[in-house]
Amino acid sequence: MGIDPGTNFTGFGIISVCGRQLELVDFGFIELSKKKNAYEKLKEIFHKVSDLVDYYDPHEVAFESPFFGENVQSMLKLGRAQGVAMAAALTKGKEVFEYAPRKVKLSITGTGGASKEQVASLLGKMFKLTELPANLDSTDGIAVAVCHYYQSIAVIKTSGKSSWNDFVKNNPGRVK
Amino acid sequence: MGIDPGTNFTGFGIISVCGRQLELVDFGFIELSKKKNAYEKLKEIFHKVSDLVDYYDPHEVAFESPFFGENVQSMLKLGRAQGVAMAAALTKGKEVFEYAPRKVKLSITGTGGASKEQVASLLGKMFKLTELPANLDSTDGIAVAVCHYYQSIAVIKTSGKSSWNDFVKNNPGRVK
Repeated sequence: MGIDPGTNFTGFGIISVCGRQLELVDFGFIELSKKKNAYEKLKEIFHKVSDLVDYYDPHEVAFESPFFGENVQSMLKLGRAQGVAMAAALTKGKEVFEYAPRKVKLSITGTGGASKEQVASLLGKMFKLTELPANLDSTDGIAVAVCHYYQSIAVIKTSGKSSWNDFVKNNPGRVK
Repeated sequence: MGIDPGTNFTGFGIISVCGRQLELVDFGFIELSKKKNAYEKLKEIFHKVSDLVDYYDPHEVAFESPFFGENVQSMLKLGRAQGVAMAAALTKGKEVFEYAPRKVKLSITGTGGASKEQVASLLGKMFKLTELPANLDSTDGIAVAVCHYYQSIAVIKTSGKSSWNDFVKNNPGRVK
């Protein structure tokens, strides 16, 4: 599961891995812009992410998280949204991972400076979507899930295991 | 209940209000410095604050929260700690409030630039403590609870109600 926490929209994407085959299970966004205050937003993020984790029971949860931002106040707000989304996964016993936006873009498009549209377009081709999601926060959720998958293979490769297929074979139940 | 979220120590204080009489029910801190990573810290904050809220069932929860900080990275970390602590209260249906550190110090000592030691010393006198807590993060938790009480009276006064006593009389069960 990939999550891109934000205070107006929190995007999510769920992918399944079978051998070397990636499948898109679900994606979407949690709409927060109409909530009446910051606390209602935090509550909504916590409940919705908890529900998604309960429903899809992902093996791991990857977050897109900038480590630097425009100013301290926006980082405080973003940090709250991230903390709440992470707590929802952590309290369900899920392992969490984080990737900076540049890393996510780099892993999907080959360039860290790619636009949201370029990322969405490549994901669309990868998953053979007939139509791209209107809200690109959803594709950011998918992107961080795919980035985490690539990262996992890279770790397995460098750790001397022969292939992702072998990893799946040797770890029944670990890969969803 | 007052909470001062931090990534090394998260202080808390619980006060009860009876008429104009304040009583210190409990205080302490959640130790986080020995947790092995940032996620373990967030999980611990969420679980411990949830436990405190369950146990004391406070009417309202007040947070000390700086709105500006030294740099974006520290604000991101602090934001996560705040978000997780707030989520623990919000998901239990508690109303939450926030006060900047200057406001908390001002309401206790009369000056926004007071030191942690001055705040602790005044709280010690107020609650007739024979010994001050060794860890001043605990007193910060008490301080924000007391600040919130003062703030509530001020609101009641300006909203035309005659006194805190009347408020308590007119709102049975609302004041713990």
